[in-house]
Amino acid sequence: MHRITGHGDKGAAIVAALNQARSVLLCVHQIPDGDALGSLSALLTTLQKQGKTVIAYCRDVVPQIYRFLPAMELVQQTFPEDASSIDVAVVMDCGDLERVCTNPDFLQNVAMLVNLDHHVGNPLFGHFNWVDTEAAATGEIIYQLHEMAGWPITADVATALYTSLMTDTGSFQFSNTTAYTLRLAAELREKGARIEEIRREVYESRTLRSLRLLQQALSTLQLSTNGKIAWIGVSLQDKERIGAIHEDFEGLISYPRTIKGVEVALLFREIEAGTVKVGLRSQSTIDVAAIARHWGGGGHRRAAGCTIKGTMAEAEQQLLAVVKECLDED
Amino acid sequence: MHRITGHGDKGAAIVAALNQARSVLLCVHQIPDGDALGSLSALLTTLQKQGKTVIAYCRDVVPQIYRFLPAMELVQQTFPEDASSIDVAVVMDCGDLERVCTNPDFLQNVAMLVNLDHHVGNPLFGHFNWVDTEAAATGEIIYQLHEMAGWPITADVATALYTSLMTDTGSFQFSNTTAYTLRLAAELREKGARIEEIRREVYESRTLRSLRLLQQALSTLQLSTNGKIAWIGVSLQDKERIGAIHEDFEGLISYPRTIKGVEVALLFREIEAGTVKVGLRSQSTIDVAAIARHWGGGGHRRAAGCTIKGTMAEAEQQLLAVVKECLDED
Ligand SMILES: [Mn+2]
Ligand SMILES: [Mn+2]
Repeated sequence: MHRITGHGDKGAAIVAALNQARSVLLCVHQIPDGDALGSLSALLTTLQKQGKTVIAYCRDVVPQIYRFLPAMELVQQTFPEDASSIDVAVVMDCGDLERVCTNPDFLQNVAMLVNLDHHVGNPLFGHFNWVDTEAAATGEIIYQLHEMAGWPITADVATALYTSLMTDTGSFQFSNTTAYTLRLAAELREKGARIEEIRREVYESRTLRSLRLLQQALSTLQLSTNGKIAWIGVSLQDKERIGAIHEDFEGLISYPRTIKGVEVALLFREIEAGTVKVGLRSQSTIDVAAIARHWGGGGHRRAAGCTIKGTMAEAEQQLLAVVKECLDED
Repeated sequence: MHRITGHGDKGAAIVAALNQARSVLLCVHQIPDGDALGSLSALLTTLQKQGKTVIAYCRDVVPQIYRFLPAMELVQQTFPEDASSIDVAVVMDCGDLERVCTNPDFLQNVAMLVNLDHHVGNPLFGHFNWVDTEAAATGEIIYQLHEMAGWPITADVATALYTSLMTDTGSFQFSNTTAYTLRLAAELREKGARIEEIRREVYESRTLRSLRLLQQALSTLQLSTNGKIAWIGVSLQDKERIGAIHEDFEGLISYPRTIKGVEVALLFREIEAGTVKVGLRSQSTIDVAAIARHWGGGGHRRAAGCTIKGTMAEAEQQLLAVVKECLDED
């Protein structure tokens, strides 16, 4: 199971550094996803087994749906006191050090900083950078690191990496799913990846709150411009009535987005009185990042966000006017 | 790409029969799913290319989300006049001839009947039966038939078979996903399976009606017995107000089913005044088929259904009483 990656030299240096290290700090981005935490879980499990002192850092607590991943109980929200106590720091699935923490200087002060990632535009902030933008998930790189080092892929490691692959490919539906990704998934399945557990924990552990939120949001569903624009909204009042938290909003925008014929989908969230956060998704050539920049926001062509001062109605009015203009020009 | 299947002899006989046939009838089960139609699309595409007369039969029309599959425009809802005009009839993804049509005698009168399936309990109704209950999807068998025959896996065939695998494994999440299934998916990806198209058509082409129905159904969501039972209902009046059709109900029961802690989920659908269809799902050891049999229904341990005479409220009351009893005994 091997892909020619062109990371042989860097990979060998990273393996050597990790093999020699006595204390390792592992970091992932804030608001962590399945790829970040799957990668973290795999490397944490492997290095711990080798008797190293391993510190796992994530600015945010591990979301409920990922707490089943091996060793997640070790993830902490603070850095150690002293950067000099760390031999190697590894940052995973992170295209930007600012996404790790508010004090990235700490990481720059560690003797060796390793950057394992697959995001386009990663600025190669580490002393060693293994950035493969063809990889569907950082989990692919973590697997290759194991392979190169000869570290065993246990059932725990396989379960963590399968979670990485699965969550970053939308369950092998997105176009980033390559034949390599699927062959790797086959290897992991063979090595004991517990896919029933992944399904149950990641995909089938909805909270009652999230369903109440979905019902409320769908009750606001509107379409315009021949069904090319669809939007939903959640007011502060509704959010509080339901008791919804950040995680409950996960995936909500996919409901208007996946209606047949919709080109641009919007989610309006009142985050405080007079402030509305807007999520934008494009299913067409419309560049929603360009739209979001009107209000100082940003993102990618197909997924972006911005924050608008005003009421929900004002935010909707402003956004829709610009989206309609873009659709007219298209 | 080969799995030892033990179907070598039968497989060779089936290949020989199909190679010799001039007219072939291909059939799948009623209310067809992605595996049935993906298998049908693949074999239909391949045999048509060989210049054979191929008739594709399905009792029900092809659901909108599967109409993108190659050659689906050829699927018809009637059998040809005369069984003797058919050299070989192939029934795919069908554990029971009664699921194909109301006149299975027609198929018994064809010179050669071939049964390609993966359902446990398939009664081997064909003259040749290739039934592999280890296969995640009938699509795996159709692939192996191509491999054995040396028929090319074109991008169209690959797209059809990827759809088979993906839909019957819940996007590679269910435990029937084997390492072989994933390696096969890798092969199909390499051979040009258009996974972006599959995602868009199968998973991202919701109807507005289905979202209205979801919103209405979620507004009826109730839980009892410490959150172990969850149910939703759709009255005839609500169904008609929304204009929902059969396909819009697809996947609806997964919403109560996937709430964390739920062991039994129920969907109540008033199909006419005084008649309620009930869908049952189990996430635990509770055997919902046994529950459904109280009302003359049936199914599997984890997925079953029955029909109850009475109002929605009466149906709920009766079902819940029995489900609670089962939970108490458990
Ligand atoms: Mn990632
Ligand atoms: Mn099937």
